[in-house]
Amino acid sequence: MMTYDNPYTHMECGILVYDGFDDLDALGPFEVFSHARKQGANIDVGLYTLDEQDHVVTSHGLRIGPVEVLPENLDLVVVPGGGWSTTDQESARGEAKRGTIPDALGRLATHGTVIASVCTGGMLLAEAGLTDDRPAITHHSAIDDLRTSGADVVEARVVDDGDIVTAGGITAGIDLALHLLEREFGTDTAQSVATTMEYEPADVVVTKEL
Amino acid sequence: MMTYDNPYTHMECGILVYDGFDDLDALGPFEVFSHARKQGANIDVGLYTLDEQDHVVTSHGLRIGPVEVLPENLDLVVVPGGGWSTTDQESARGEAKRGTIPDALGRLATHGTVIASVCTGGMLLAEAGLTDDRPAITHHSAIDDLRTSGADVVEARVVDDGDIVTAGGITAGIDLALHLLEREFGTDTAQSVATTMEYEPADVVVTKEL
Repeated sequence: MMTYDNPYTHMECGILVYDGFDDLDALGPFEVFSHARKQGANIDVGLYTLDEQDHVVTSHGLRIGPVEVLPENLDLVVVPGGGWSTTDQESARGEAKRGTIPDALGRLATHGTVIASVCTGGMLLAEAGLTDDRPAITHHSAIDDLRTSGADVVEARVVDDGDIVTAGGITAGIDLALHLLEREFGTDTAQSVATTMEYEPADVVVTKEL
Repeated sequence: MMTYDNPYTHMECGILVYDGFDDLDALGPFEVFSHARKQGANIDVGLYTLDEQDHVVTSHGLRIGPVEVLPENLDLVVVPGGGWSTTDQESARGEAKRGTIPDALGRLATHGTVIASVCTGGMLLAEAGLTDDRPAITHHSAIDDLRTSGADVVEARVVDDGDIVTAGGITAGIDLALHLLEREFGTDTAQSVATTMEYEPADVVVTKEL
């Protein structure tokens, strides 16, 4: 796995949630970045929504807050998945159809924010055109749709293509976040958090020289 | 790993949370049991507190609800950890000192509820005397304290001793829940949820003939 010195004096990271997101898709990366902060990494992490909400409701029925309106100046946005083979409006599928999250991701990417996804969150990047002709992965239930969208599917747990980083299903979000920690803050920081969380990180595919 | 036929017509499972619990300690098992329910297993899972609260605040600052007051008739209670090397009152350490959760766990165990823990949640079982002279594990930062308490420490990711089942730190809670699913509902149910969550279950130590 590649690492390089931290290019940030401070890393501002947002998990972009919406009603119907899969709990662990978002809370896995949130936990990784939160532990990194507690252990001294210069990183902030919070849950954000596109519009003002008091809280979000997860796909498993929890109410979670606080959430703030997504600012435009984040270094990194992580998009969780949540329901793809569903007609439920409150799901990743519903957000792909609605289009406002994909539109926002497109704008953020243009402004230099690194866009990452967990699980079917990757389909919101695909809807934004961000994975067209680029290596990417999503939850196994959506891989055919990701391929059809024009992405170059790489069947790995995490696929790092520089400013677009995608992960497989649910628990792969933990690997995504640990990989981004390693990439931005170095091996020691990522290893320290993995040790605290008693987690053995998986292999990651890096497709672009960083 | 041992499995046996489901002894429950219905399994009522509670995650016993408190202000300062570690987010993923609780949400990992919650996610596993929630997916099992969605996939047809006859299981209910919810977040519970000892006293009435609108929500709980996690160790990483999230507000999570809904929570209900813990009933006396659950089949299984899972106790998350959250802060052991801390003087913060809102932590597993604080709850061990306060003693009300350990007291409740002792009563539930007497009435036949299976008691399980993730991470330093195991120290609340220890405080209740539930792990005295019994095989158990906790987060690596608390293993010496668990041993001092009188438990027979087994350095495994999950230790199943029948009506007391303990897991190591944070992400080991996912393995705990998958193991309990396998134990109560069989291999197919556990494997189906692990596949959905794209998670490779770890080995579990079973110390008692079930």
